[in-house]
Amino acid sequence: MAIVKKAISWLRVPPQEDAPPGVKAMYDKADEKLGFVPNVLRVYSLRPAHLELWNAFYDDLMRGESGLTRPQREMIAVVVSTATRCHYCMVSHSAYLRKLTGDPVLVEQLRTNYRYAEIEPRERAMLDFAVKLTEQSSRCTEADVEALREAGWSDEDIFDITEVAAMFNFTNRLASGLGWVPNDEFVTLGLGESS
Amino acid sequence: MAIVKKAISWLRVPPQEDAPPGVKAMYDKADEKLGFVPNVLRVYSLRPAHLELWNAFYDDLMRGESGLTRPQREMIAVVVSTATRCHYCMVSHSAYLRKLTGDPVLVEQLRTNYRYAEIEPRERAMLDFAVKLTEQSSRCTEADVEALREAGWSDEDIFDITEVAAMFNFTNRLASGLGWVPNDEFVTLGLGESS
Amino acid sequence: MAIVKKAISWLRVPPQEDAPPGVKAMYDKADEKLGFVPNVLRVYSLRPAHLELWNAFYDDLMRGESGLTRPQREMIAVVVSTATRCHYCMVSHSAYLRKLTGDPVLVEQLRTNYRYAEIEPRERAMLDFAVKLTEQSSRCTEADVEALREAGWSDEDIFDITEVAAMFNFTNRLASGLGWVPNDEFVTLGLGESS
Amino acid sequence: MAIVKKAISWLRVPPQEDAPPGVKAMYDKADEKLGFVPNVLRVYSLRPAHLELWNAFYDDLMRGESGLTRPQREMIAVVVSTATRCHYCMVSHSAYLRKLTGDPVLVEQLRTNYRYAEIEPRERAMLDFAVKLTEQSSRCTEADVEALREAGWSDEDIFDITEVAAMFNFTNRLASGLGWVPNDEFVTLGLGESS
Amino acid sequence: MAIVKKAISWLRVPPQEDAPPGVKAMYDKADEKLGFVPNVLRVYSLRPAHLELWNAFYDDLMRGESGLTRPQREMIAVVVSTATRCHYCMVSHSAYLRKLTGDPVLVEQLRTNYRYAEIEPRERAMLDFAVKLTEQSSRCTEADVEALREAGWSDEDIFDITEVAAMFNFTNRLASGLGWVPNDEFVTLGLGESS
Amino acid sequence: MAIVKKAISWLRVPPQEDAPPGVKAMYDKADEKLGFVPNVLRVYSLRPAHLELWNAFYDDLMRGESGLTRPQREMIAVVVSTATRCHYCMVSHSAYLRKLTGDPVLVEQLRTNYRYAEIEPRERAMLDFAVKLTEQSSRCTEADVEALREAGWSDEDIFDITEVAAMFNFTNRLASGLGWVPNDEFVTLGLGESS
Repeated sequence: MAIVKKAISWLRVPPQEDAPPGVKAMYDKADEKLGFVPNVLRVYSLRPAHLELWNAFYDDLMRGESGLTRPQREMIAVVVSTATRCHYCMVSHSAYLRKLTGDPVLVEQLRTNYRYAEIEPRERAMLDFAVKLTEQSSRCTEADVEALREAGWSDEDIFDITEVAAMFNFTNRLASGLGWVPNDEFVTLGLGESS
Repeated sequence: MAIVKKAISWLRVPPQEDAPPGVKAMYDKADEKLGFVPNVLRVYSLRPAHLELWNAFYDDLMRGESGLTRPQREMIAVVVSTATRCHYCMVSHSAYLRKLTGDPVLVEQLRTNYRYAEIEPRERAMLDFAVKLTEQSSRCTEADVEALREAGWSDEDIFDITEVAAMFNFTNRLASGLGWVPNDEFVTLGLGESS
Repeated sequence: MAIVKKAISWLRVPPQEDAPPGVKAMYDKADEKLGFVPNVLRVYSLRPAHLELWNAFYDDLMRGESGLTRPQREMIAVVVSTATRCHYCMVSHSAYLRKLTGDPVLVEQLRTNYRYAEIEPRERAMLDFAVKLTEQSSRCTEADVEALREAGWSDEDIFDITEVAAMFNFTNRLASGLGWVPNDEFVTLGLGESS
Repeated sequence: MAIVKKAISWLRVPPQEDAPPGVKAMYDKADEKLGFVPNVLRVYSLRPAHLELWNAFYDDLMRGESGLTRPQREMIAVVVSTATRCHYCMVSHSAYLRKLTGDPVLVEQLRTNYRYAEIEPRERAMLDFAVKLTEQSSRCTEADVEALREAGWSDEDIFDITEVAAMFNFTNRLASGLGWVPNDEFVTLGLGESS
Repeated sequence: MAIVKKAISWLRVPPQEDAPPGVKAMYDKADEKLGFVPNVLRVYSLRPAHLELWNAFYDDLMRGESGLTRPQREMIAVVVSTATRCHYCMVSHSAYLRKLTGDPVLVEQLRTNYRYAEIEPRERAMLDFAVKLTEQSSRCTEADVEALREAGWSDEDIFDITEVAAMFNFTNRLASGLGWVPNDEFVTLGLGESS
Repeated sequence: MAIVKKAISWLRVPPQEDAPPGVKAMYDKADEKLGFVPNVLRVYSLRPAHLELWNAFYDDLMRGESGLTRPQREMIAVVVSTATRCHYCMVSHSAYLRKLTGDPVLVEQLRTNYRYAEIEPRERAMLDFAVKLTEQSSRCTEADVEALREAGWSDEDIFDITEVAAMFNFTNRLASGLGWVPNDEFVTLGLGESS
């Protein structure tokens, strides 16, 4: 019996086997790490050159050298995606953050109302900034930047906080504008384990 | 007498001469084309590796192969930046679009209230989508995508419309979050000329 | 070593052992069913007479005779609590709905962006109504009620849909106004099981 | 000649004479006190068991033992109903508050813009809290509760303020969602008299 | 014993007897008609030349030749002032409209939620336009104007509808920005009488 | 070949030659000063008596005796019109302010995000007040007025600031409600010159 799969985008999704080598390499790397290919890679392959360039940028921003830890960057991802109510990104980045921290309670706080999260003051300042930037960027002022400095962040760190929050303003709009649906696997990923 | 220049960012701006070679090349290329180095390159050089990766992605998206013309992509830039009231991006991309079209009246329409712009129906559909995506992304539906198809855009075009709109949701937040100020030269660029 | 418990309300919480008999009976009943006493009962016991009267009303509304199934009533609970971003109610009612349906994927859809949920059209109409009622009640019109009738709901059903949505507008405000924190047990309740 | 009465709900309204005994008792009690049966009892009788349970809870909350006076509880009713622009509740609770205070000028201030009301500071704090809770509950913080304590309210009082405000978030949504229309008698009730 | 009067503006209010002749004439005319001098004339007299010019314009707009009746113009006044929650204008124009129509029930509908008002379809169209213009003017389109034409209004009428709605956007901001307080007499004016 | 002109209003525009003498005089005066007749005069001539009375008021407010300079009054015009996104008024008043100041960079700051404008603190306070008054007038308080006094403005000045801001809330709604289109000449007016 044929398996009927639900659509994962409102646009055409190219068959997995048609992917050019650069995209194929991403599929393989992700599959190895997670046990499945995240749908974002599948749906973004409609524009393979864009995907490769975006991925190079995104990967360095989220995993490269920074004054922010990996989990801190994922905390911004979860909180920004919650602010914009982005289905794909809330589900997938909650999973990544559970996997990184082994702390489903923390993730639950961040994705309902981050003001309830039990985190350090400098992380709270970081998230306050990310949410203001997402919800009312034109109201941001130098005082907001100063508050981050007072919380202990360097100018380079503040740049990264802003850039990560801006990045999810980008990906949230791709996902919400084009109807991306996350893999079911994400829903339970990172529950009861730590990595 | 020393010239006092106004600050162009709320964060530290590295001296122009300290830029690594990849960033320096961007400065030179921009200077050749415009006659000055846009402040975005100066302020982004605080994180030079990010700047180079972002620029490679941005450049392909805005100038690479696409079903959208160059001016259409800049129209999205102007309209999204107006929706978020981003000082830097409204000023600079109005200039770029005036330069590309030689039509200051059109640009004025787009940057006050794009509903008054005298453009083709498919361009109007493109801008309606970009604004909805910017202002209330979680309300986007498959019907919005279908409206673009009916206006004559292919799935690849719709991807690009979404991605360009998303890109300015990214840059607008960098600029508004970090207090970027555009070069004065942008204000009169493209007035009374076409290129 | 004494265990330090985090505060579960911004107001004083009466000791569990001081509860009057009617409240004590609720503690015992809940403990038997869930294995723990939900914090809502603890924090509400500051006004025990109110708690008993509210609970009688709430219990009949959520578990009594109705044209809505138990899971449908919990779907409204999750979606309204998501619309108001109520930490306590999102966490606890996601758990109840997972327990009732054994379907964590569905719950995840409802609590990020319910427009992605794979549900029947009449349930979608029910949730559209509940969200409009929550977010902009003064804009509700007779046409909204008519849409529910066309989706197959009776007048009594429409009353119950409205009343359940209104009830979570009540409880969300108690929880968000007084800083209620859900039991950690809720976070993983109903994952991987059905009841 | 038959009298044509305007509809008082978008749903079916059961004939007054069909009411079960518990509901009938409410009709009689209200009629005795006011000289007419408030429409809320008529329209709610579509679900008589719910009506009786709600009324028991509501009655204790609004008229039972509390650190808030009766007029203070009605002040919250008026201000919350104004914030949500609920036709039925603004009209009826303005009348109740005029009746209780004999002060139509005060009621007029509360139902246009309560910031103009000439009331005690602790009552102003109470109303500021009720409005914030109604309009943006997810932004409420412990500092808001602390402000009430500083204004002189006890923890039990703060619970009641929150609960009364939440109650009108409930009733406003029933009335606005189902198109309830108040009795004309309310419009002039309490003008020129005190009780 | 000296009578202490409450402040009727956040700015200085010139003594009534210092008014220049043109303003004095307004006081006398209003006093004759209403039995008191509306506070708007008192507080506006800080800039007497502006007051006289504004009044000449306002008077012609509200009482001069038009396809709109006097009550229709006051209906717009009430509904626009309700939309902006302007204390002074809601109180005073509710009074004027009660006086003109002798219908307190209608006024109550208009100043809580005008969608409940029992008025002609063309009046409903007129108010829908006035509210949209007040709340989101940049979203107005040619289709909104066309809807007024279809409801039976001429181009001159549509101009007047727009101008009256715009006028209360003007006066509402003067009153709300400067803290104007209406005379207590307005609160009961027009209750139980018609003129 | 006949010249096809684009519509400058969604309503009928009376032929220029049909204007009554008072309106004709306005045309001539404006033409002499600017070299063209601003479309506002053309479209407003549908109701010539209103136009004359409005113009007398407007002219005194914008050009008459005041503690505000002419450019300061135009700064309010630009910033209020930007807040409401009024196409006609943004384009025309940007032109007037460029003409008055010879400073296109300043105008660009004011019409994108006035918080970036390099102006005196008292002018910043003036614009903060004008924007709050435009966007959320019902939240204005005596403290806002006090802030203007502390910035050095007299009570008469504060009246004028409020009145000018309110005036553009009026004109913005006429223009946006009726689809007014500015003359193309405004787009480049005041670029590279001072008057």
